[in-house]
Amino acid sequence: MQIRTVIFATGNPGKMREVREILSDLDARVMSMREAEAFCEPEETGTTFEENALIKARAVAEKARGLWPGLLVLADDSGLEVDYLHKKPGVYSARWMGEDTSYRLKNAAIVGLLEGVPDEERTARFVSAIAAVFPDGTEAVVREAVEGIIGYEERGENGFGYDPIFYLPELGKTSAEIPMEEKNKISHRGKALRRMEEVIRAYENRHRQ
Amino acid sequence: MQIRTVIFATGNPGKMREVREILSDLDARVMSMREAEAFCEPEETGTTFEENALIKARAVAEKARGLWPGLLVLADDSGLEVDYLHKKPGVYSARWMGEDTSYRLKNAAIVGLLEGVPDEERTARFVSAIAAVFPDGTEAVVREAVEGIIGYEERGENGFGYDPIFYLPELGKTSAEIPMEEKNKISHRGKALRRMEEVIRAYENRHRQ
Repeated sequence: MQIRTVIFATGNPGKMREVREILSDLDARVMSMREAEAFCEPEETGTTFEENALIKARAVAEKARGLWPGLLVLADDSGLEVDYLHKKPGVYSARWMGEDTSYRLKNAAIVGLLEGVPDEERTARFVSAIAAVFPDGTEAVVREAVEGIIGYEERGENGFGYDPIFYLPELGKTSAEIPMEEKNKISHRGKALRRMEEVIRAYENRHRQ
Repeated sequence: MQIRTVIFATGNPGKMREVREILSDLDARVMSMREAEAFCEPEETGTTFEENALIKARAVAEKARGLWPGLLVLADDSGLEVDYLHKKPGVYSARWMGEDTSYRLKNAAIVGLLEGVPDEERTARFVSAIAAVFPDGTEAVVREAVEGIIGYEERGENGFGYDPIFYLPELGKTSAEIPMEEKNKISHRGKALRRMEEVIRAYENRHRQ
């Protein structure tokens, strides 16, 4: 079954833009959950990014079943793993301290817990898993990460979330100090989306009419 | 030189009450920093509770020098050590995430970072160091702790700070679920104050006229 519709399970316009761009030469309509009338927020009970991405993709696929022809559902789950904090906040990154708590505070919490900790123990990574439910019901998950270290203070205005404290040693900047376009090239989500793009191409090649 | 005046370096009325009670049969006037016109908030640059307590006691002793006869200055530094978080927030307990950030959020941050962590790895302790600068310029520091585990949610209304997430296994309650009187008996600060009381008695015995 060929792909004719794609739903990306996010409420984030920035993510939607990124996905549309990456999937632009796919001959399919790319929609958000709302556009597709398949909005849902299942409880993310998984203990890994992969599980949570799959939970979301399956829930949307279930909700959109029969509504759209040749439907591919994509969903992502992302987070920050701080090695010194046993890879937390990890899959709890968004929910940690409550969804409504500002990242200024969340960032202050992490930086504070790493006070006095030397660079070599401040390693961290942004992880992104992207799950897909294909028109024939098969599933796929990919995972990518970008490595960095936790900074000593917030820096930069371009990013969001944990970006201002995520320092990329090779660039000498935090994730919030690099322009959005450049960030999409190196980001965990950008990398995972491009990996998923390859998986989608392979599916298309197998199902070409 | 006999003790005739005691300044306890705190702005916390609850702590003052506790100190007055414990030192009540000492023949000396017990005052807060404000009452003694010796208010100061030195930067707590120490890396241990003992150092920070000493920094405070010395700063107040310096400020009050010559103002009061037979002056004993006491200062405390307390905090929560969470083993899973490398004994943080520790000496940063009060400043962590900013002095003005509610403990509801600080507690949510800790509980969130311990999500999925089993009881045996949730060990923690409240630590209190109390420093003294005696009328003859000699110094002393004592340190006490109370062991517990980090709970899964906030419980209890009696305490403050990290009390609602600090579970005392022997009592089957959090530090915020036990009445204040009972808490003073078992608390880190209560224990340290009683240890310091013994040190003060010994000083008095040596300097009795």
